[in-house]
Amino acid sequence: MAEQIAYGGDYNPEQWPQEVWAADHEAFSLARIDTLTVGVFAWAHLQTGEDAYDFTTLDAIVARIVAEGRKIVLATATGALPPWLAKAHPEVNRTDFEGRRHRYGQRHNHCPSSPVFQRLSAALAGRIAQRYAGTPGLIAWHVGNEYGGACYCDNCAAAFRLWLRARYGNLDRLNHAWNATFWSHTFTDWDEIEPPSALTEHWRGPNHTAFQGITLDYLRFTSDAMLRNFTDEKAAIREHDPSTPVTTNFMGMYRPIDYHRWAEHLDLATWDNYPPNEHAQARMAFTHDLMRGLKDGAPFWVMEQTPTTTASRDVNPVKRPGVLRLWSWQAVAHGADAVLYFQMRQSRGACEKYHGAVLDHTGRTDTRAFTEAATLGGELERLGDATLGARTPARVALLFDWDSWWAAEISDGPNRHVTYPDVVLGYHRALWEANVDLDVVPVTADLAGYDVVLAPLLHMVKGDLTQRLAAVVARGGTVLTSFLSGRVDVDDNAFLGDDPGGFTSLFGVRVAETDAQPRDVANPVTLTDPDGADGGAALTADGHLVMEVLVPEGADVVGTYGADFYAGEPAVTRYRPGGRAGAAWYVGTQLAADGVAWVVRTALAGHGLLGPYPDEPELEVSVREREGVRHSFVLWHGEEPVEVAAHTSGTDVLTGRVIAAGETLRLAPKDVLVIREG
Amino acid sequence: MAEQIAYGGDYNPEQWPQEVWAADHEAFSLARIDTLTVGVFAWAHLQTGEDAYDFTTLDAIVARIVAEGRKIVLATATGALPPWLAKAHPEVNRTDFEGRRHRYGQRHNHCPSSPVFQRLSAALAGRIAQRYAGTPGLIAWHVGNEYGGACYCDNCAAAFRLWLRARYGNLDRLNHAWNATFWSHTFTDWDEIEPPSALTEHWRGPNHTAFQGITLDYLRFTSDAMLRNFTDEKAAIREHDPSTPVTTNFMGMYRPIDYHRWAEHLDLATWDNYPPNEHAQARMAFTHDLMRGLKDGAPFWVMEQTPTTTASRDVNPVKRPGVLRLWSWQAVAHGADAVLYFQMRQSRGACEKYHGAVLDHTGRTDTRAFTEAATLGGELERLGDATLGARTPARVALLFDWDSWWAAEISDGPNRHVTYPDVVLGYHRALWEANVDLDVVPVTADLAGYDVVLAPLLHMVKGDLTQRLAAVVARGGTVLTSFLSGRVDVDDNAFLGDDPGGFTSLFGVRVAETDAQPRDVANPVTLTDPDGADGGAALTADGHLVMEVLVPEGADVVGTYGADFYAGEPAVTRYRPGGRAGAAWYVGTQLAADGVAWVVRTALAGHGLLGPYPDEPELEVSVREREGVRHSFVLWHGEEPVEVAAHTSGTDVLTGRVIAAGETLRLAPKDVLVIREG
Amino acid sequence: MAEQIAYGGDYNPEQWPQEVWAADHEAFSLARIDTLTVGVFAWAHLQTGEDAYDFTTLDAIVARIVAEGRKIVLATATGALPPWLAKAHPEVNRTDFEGRRHRYGQRHNHCPSSPVFQRLSAALAGRIAQRYAGTPGLIAWHVGNEYGGACYCDNCAAAFRLWLRARYGNLDRLNHAWNATFWSHTFTDWDEIEPPSALTEHWRGPNHTAFQGITLDYLRFTSDAMLRNFTDEKAAIREHDPSTPVTTNFMGMYRPIDYHRWAEHLDLATWDNYPPNEHAQARMAFTHDLMRGLKDGAPFWVMEQTPTTTASRDVNPVKRPGVLRLWSWQAVAHGADAVLYFQMRQSRGACEKYHGAVLDHTGRTDTRAFTEAATLGGELERLGDATLGARTPARVALLFDWDSWWAAEISDGPNRHVTYPDVVLGYHRALWEANVDLDVVPVTADLAGYDVVLAPLLHMVKGDLTQRLAAVVARGGTVLTSFLSGRVDVDDNAFLGDDPGGFTSLFGVRVAETDAQPRDVANPVTLTDPDGADGGAALTADGHLVMEVLVPEGADVVGTYGADFYAGEPAVTRYRPGGRAGAAWYVGTQLAADGVAWVVRTALAGHGLLGPYPDEPELEVSVREREGVRHSFVLWHGEEPVEVAAHTSGTDVLTGRVIAAGETLRLAPKDVLVIREG
Repeated sequence: MAEQIAYGGDYNPEQWPQEVWAADHEAFSLARIDTLTVGVFAWAHLQTGEDAYDFTTLDAIVARIVAEGRKIVLATATGALPPWLAKAHPEVNRTDFEGRRHRYGQRHNHCPSSPVFQRLSAALAGRIAQRYAGTPGLIAWHVGNEYGGACYCDNCAAAFRLWLRARYGNLDRLNHAWNATFWSHTFTDWDEIEPPSALTEHWRGPNHTAFQGITLDYLRFTSDAMLRNFTDEKAAIREHDPSTPVTTNFMGMYRPIDYHRWAEHLDLATWDNYPPNEHAQARMAFTHDLMRGLKDGAPFWVMEQTPTTTASRDVNPVKRPGVLRLWSWQAVAHGADAVLYFQMRQSRGACEKYHGAVLDHTGRTDTRAFTEAATLGGELERLGDATLGARTPARVALLFDWDSWWAAEISDGPNRHVTYPDVVLGYHRALWEANVDLDVVPVTADLAGYDVVLAPLLHMVKGDLTQRLAAVVARGGTVLTSFLSGRVDVDDNAFLGDDPGGFTSLFGVRVAETDAQPRDVANPVTLTDPDGADGGAALTADGHLVMEVLVPEGADVVGTYGADFYAGEPAVTRYRPGGRAGAAWYVGTQLAADGVAWVVRTALAGHGLLGPYPDEPELEVSVREREGVRHSFVLWHGEEPVEVAAHTSGTDVLTGRVIAAGETLRLAPKDVLVIREG
Repeated sequence: MAEQIAYGGDYNPEQWPQEVWAADHEAFSLARIDTLTVGVFAWAHLQTGEDAYDFTTLDAIVARIVAEGRKIVLATATGALPPWLAKAHPEVNRTDFEGRRHRYGQRHNHCPSSPVFQRLSAALAGRIAQRYAGTPGLIAWHVGNEYGGACYCDNCAAAFRLWLRARYGNLDRLNHAWNATFWSHTFTDWDEIEPPSALTEHWRGPNHTAFQGITLDYLRFTSDAMLRNFTDEKAAIREHDPSTPVTTNFMGMYRPIDYHRWAEHLDLATWDNYPPNEHAQARMAFTHDLMRGLKDGAPFWVMEQTPTTTASRDVNPVKRPGVLRLWSWQAVAHGADAVLYFQMRQSRGACEKYHGAVLDHTGRTDTRAFTEAATLGGELERLGDATLGARTPARVALLFDWDSWWAAEISDGPNRHVTYPDVVLGYHRALWEANVDLDVVPVTADLAGYDVVLAPLLHMVKGDLTQRLAAVVARGGTVLTSFLSGRVDVDDNAFLGDDPGGFTSLFGVRVAETDAQPRDVANPVTLTDPDGADGGAALTADGHLVMEVLVPEGADVVGTYGADFYAGEPAVTRYRPGGRAGAAWYVGTQLAADGVAWVVRTALAGHGLLGPYPDEPELEVSVREREGVRHSFVLWHGEEPVEVAAHTSGTDVLTGRVIAAGETLRLAPKDVLVIREG
Repeated sequence: MAEQIAYGGDYNPEQWPQEVWAADHEAFSLARIDTLTVGVFAWAHLQTGEDAYDFTTLDAIVARIVAEGRKIVLATATGALPPWLAKAHPEVNRTDFEGRRHRYGQRHNHCPSSPVFQRLSAALAGRIAQRYAGTPGLIAWHVGNEYGGACYCDNCAAAFRLWLRARYGNLDRLNHAWNATFWSHTFTDWDEIEPPSALTEHWRGPNHTAFQGITLDYLRFTSDAMLRNFTDEKAAIREHDPSTPVTTNFMGMYRPIDYHRWAEHLDLATWDNYPPNEHAQARMAFTHDLMRGLKDGAPFWVMEQTPTTTASRDVNPVKRPGVLRLWSWQAVAHGADAVLYFQMRQSRGACEKYHGAVLDHTGRTDTRAFTEAATLGGELERLGDATLGARTPARVALLFDWDSWWAAEISDGPNRHVTYPDVVLGYHRALWEANVDLDVVPVTADLAGYDVVLAPLLHMVKGDLTQRLAAVVARGGTVLTSFLSGRVDVDDNAFLGDDPGGFTSLFGVRVAETDAQPRDVANPVTLTDPDGADGGAALTADGHLVMEVLVPEGADVVGTYGADFYAGEPAVTRYRPGGRAGAAWYVGTQLAADGVAWVVRTALAGHGLLGPYPDEPELEVSVREREGVRHSFVLWHGEEPVEVAAHTSGTDVLTGRVIAAGETLRLAPKDVLVIREG
């Protein structure tokens, strides 16, 4: 096998008679498919009882793949329970948020705290590892599948209490953390604590809780409980295979699991890219960067994407011509070293019967889906190993924090319409439209290498983050935060001082009032460049949802409200502590996109970090660099052709064309250039 | 009793003191009410314990009706459980889709698999039959009431497993039918199978299932389980009465029960006509035809309709003047031999307190409701026995299939906004507006008598249907199908070949891509008559929701898309295999009404089947024929008066007026003519 | 302590370290806070086990308040269960409408029928009363908190059956009351009766029931069950304190509890004022009047209001400048002798972390909230005892009836969009905009003192109400009712006569038809003053939702429909029985605001009851009178300044300004005048 971007995807030949397998592999060769993920949902046919394993089919599948010379991603087969297990041990089924013990059905359906599940899943992973470790072409172990959801059963309640004991040590500390005196909640025995659900602290669903503390801790506990499922299986694999990377497929910006808590336990980050629609380019770029940020910038894999259409949405369009190629190259541009599909052959029945695949029900190789996949396979082959292991040279960091996500969205007040992704993606989009290479990093990340750090809606401030942000400013860098940031500590209790409690001195500003308004109310904010020559207003942009009335305590006023009783009061400020170069921006309202873009570009201006095509927001440029070699990916997401001056000299790897910096590039819709610079 | 259309309805004198009964009957005579349905909800007062029956009140009710010389429809009284039974045997109460065992309440509330219910309901039906068989005027037995709903209890789970054993014989066949390998669902013991519910395979309600196979089978099982309740009671009746027709009241186009599976077990089809609003004329016509189709075109009964208003809707308007008469005659026009109301006297309390009745709370006979009912009674008397047993001379068939309904709507992908009734009613409306006499028939129907057969959205193709449709084409007939037809087999597994798998060769076309779009996206389809002289476009009509890109394999292109990346590609085709007269139309998108009308009229054109007033879409004409005598019903649904040329000579039965073909008929809004032709 | 309006609110120092207490009291003094409510959610720290009480903290809190010379409202601490109790006795937790037994969580969470709760709550109330009775400054006992919700557990089922036995005596009477023969519901044993819930008689939530009778009785039972919780605790208090007023905080127009059934058991009415938005002035006025009506017009307390913002809404704006003052004076204007906040210091954590408070998280006294509260404190001090105990001199009564509320909204038919508050508030608004002093009274109230009595949407007529209304008319007064009034008796069964069954002869009209239409349909009603000189139409106003076609039986036609098949038929009538002065108005449709205003003003016209500023609808005037001294409160709710002629001479208590009747008053937005007349 040549070293190149792994290309292929999920393959379930156990669902088909063996005569189909030959046609499959013939087609795979046509499309340059070199990697197959097998066994993800194979538990039922690998194990038919507690002590009854049967690897006959999997042996044959693996043998055939080896014979064909392809690479293998081998699953531990625990993505769905087999019926016999669910029947024999009802505890392995989840109890949902409504308190209902489920019976057998669906997938991703195990209780993470079930001792039976823990024992049998690890045993299966161990058996599989024992049998297939060392298989030629085995490039990764795929544990479980798309971990997610939550369980509220008595086993989980017991595990939660143990988790709390480990976190708090004693009930006094727990009661203080949860502010339990409020509403008579002082716990006097660990067993009094119930999982927060529709039967206990919640109403109107998971975001409405009487006690944010217990809900936040249950979110953390659930993430940890599933992580334990992963590490149990990983440990079982490691008994038989000391080195092949072990991973599982994440789901991008997925709220239930704190991937930052998981990252250190994975050898490799991978994720499944199912964007909500065909206008999700910026969002996908963000998510690629978030996934890359899990392992300190190391390349990740796209473990799944659909070649054509999904089936699970209310409306499932096919991908338009060229989209598969464009999005696949976008993944590579942001750090992917594998581009994999779900799946190779379309399901015969059940709920993914209409989910697209490289091969359709007929197995035709003249479909648009197959043809586009084969074309892409050829291009990836042409690129070869050029970008494997390459990194993104980012000088801008965007903080992302599951705790803040949870805390902001389970808060009662001020405004339920504020969502963490909306705000974070708003700031990301401003960076993306300016072609800025950036990292999306956890709040614990080393910030020493960044000139600019954005921390929008960072509701919760933990550990030494404030100091590390202050250090960015101290060395001349820029930091930015927004409304509702710095409000609560690690336990979701308010800082007992002026808002933004965790950030007041860093940003030189305090919040006098926090007003909230319905979605259809806008308050125009007039923004003025604090370093502008004439002091004239640069832009008026609408503020929405939350309007904090700011009182500068050192900061300069950059934006003021234009309406309501706080018209004329500060809405946006910038602080240069000690008058030095560093800057701390505070944005007290949810600005519309033009306002965010203005703030971000103004903040970036002094650092020379704007990308090459800031005036073409749909023209994406992203760089990967390895040992001094830079590949510049140019991706045109617009609907019409465009002409721009080349931002660099080099050679387009896909066509061999030599490009001189400054020459006119004519890009058709969905065009891709992969320019080896130099 | 004179032979005539049965006229009357539900009568519950047990809810009233006996002094009211005399007033009731006096009023009935005024209104020519000759038929009363009694005992539908009488279980509690007929049986007060397992062995305690009391027929005193029913005896008196029946005796009084007999004395008045009216006809009786006698219920088996099992439409609602009595409290003592629900308390003594909690198993008779249903467990709902959410897994909640219900307690006593409402009606139509029994678990169909409950042994106790099965035993006691049959026992009660037998007792009643034993006592009242041979009662003068007894014209039908009414078993249960509006069967429907579903249960998910352990008794149902056990019965479902038995049903599956009978269907599949062994688990290998079941696993194959359900494509169980997908998501690790291979069953190794029948007891592992759980009813598909919110606790097992479903999310977001009954239409979202991980496994279509089990859900489809549970729908079939539920229909059969309730059918067994019906046949249990029928068998008990037949022990005492060998011949009086046994029926139950259906609910028209009602998804939970496959009435085609029931039809052979009923001696007579009856249904309750509660249209959603006052613009449901076409829908009611369709439903009458569907009900008539249950018994091969034999006349049916309208078992219930409201004289004035419903109570169960959010908004319950009164029927406008003339509407009761117009709709009642529409029922007769489509094959009704009975026109019955729910109910005769308005309830004193509970949830039907405001449901309209022939007699209101006061018992006035000068209300509009009573007056209109009495006028209609007089007209029906005038018609006499003229149409009893008459048939509809249809040469067009519209296929209707519960399996396709279920399969299309529980499918994941391509588009949840597609509903089976929308599509079928769309094609029906085109026929109705063209005044075409038609039958709505099951897919197993004998198609030999039809010139044109429409099979819109026939997602599932079973048995020899394709061959029977091909035979229609072979003898010069026309068939038509639409997008998403022919996709799955009887188990809801995809045909492993080009789409429409079951239909590809018949229609001479294959589907290259199936795109789906949100409700607000339209793709203009340009339609051109394939037999037109100039080849010019006849019409451009919008396609919605699903756009199949077609590849003709023999067929002529009739319509092409005008937008998106498949602009110019075929959307509608017509195939004349062997160049002969027969034609097979395929419509690859959900055309707007004008497009459907164009396609339907073009397809009908060669068969001379357009009705007499195709340019007056709201003028309905429907024919009933018996022994060579034709009655032509002319129903004017428009809001304004209209003038048309009489399409036939004859005599209006209602007025005695003699009509000459071609003379001008002036019709006021809601006018009805019943023309005895000749 | 000076005698004045009690000013302060909920205070929870147990949630704070003692060093904060000093700062609190210092701030309270600045703001003239003289009253503190303590202990509402203190159960967990007062009682840590069945026999373990600990009053250390509460002793200290009370001692400090006494030392500061403030007044105390002392809670019985049963507003939320402690965890140990919920764990030891799961029966104290509620079972919800869906049949789910809850576990520990939230507040207001006890089962009212739990013997354990009944025993322990009374025991705690008794202990507290024993300890703190006689405390200096103790002005009231606050039992529980915001009673509400419902429980459906087996203890409640048993208690419900006892309640029914007491109400009906035997099952025959119950079956008749519930019209149980309908749908086979005849009960033969009390134990067959289940609470009406989603598992029994209901679908689509609490308003959709198969049997209105059982649902109505369960609402009454629930109200009574919670009342028993209150009276249990009150009795325990009275063992130790014979005279200090005992109360609990109501929630205004709160559907689940029939406050009229509770009123006689309270020594004082109090309520929590959280209006839905900033345009709720009329609604708040109504609610103040409703609360005042609970105790025959005696002053009430505002037990809670927020100084700035709520937290529990989706969107939580801050109160605009001046609003807190305006609304607080509105409360006093309508009879409040206390103006209290929730709460004094903002919560550190949990779901009220962002609920506003007099002191914020920092404890600043320069916030707008604190400053406005302090200013108001000064004004209240200035008013002193001038209005304590004063009454509202109302000659107009508006009937309010929980039974009619429930019956109208749980009815199937005619129109689910009709809500009792909408209709009642519509008539109230017409009165409010005309500055009419009015009482909101129960249907059992003595009507002898009123000139005008309005009874809109009085669906249920009980007892001798009709006679008492007739007496109003007989002595020359005016009564008014609307569509859907007079329809059902105390059991929610229809009166078996012409509609409005209970009212036909009183209003001299009957309802021939009751049409219902969707929200977007309007029927223009032309209104003509029956006493007008020229008989010309005075106004055409839209009717909505329900259109009753009226047949006068003695009444004059005042309004006629302009559309639909009943165009020209009567919509509004007025009856002058015997041609005497008294009048009975019947309004057969839900008139738009202009129509209601016309009807109300026309009806009032003969009684000289229009207020001083009928042409300034946002200018509120309300009077309180004590021993011949009248205070006239003038409240300007408009957004712009206004000038009016003073309606009275007197002195503005707030400014000392002397006002002469007729002089021009210039009012800025949110201005308040408290004019001591004379």
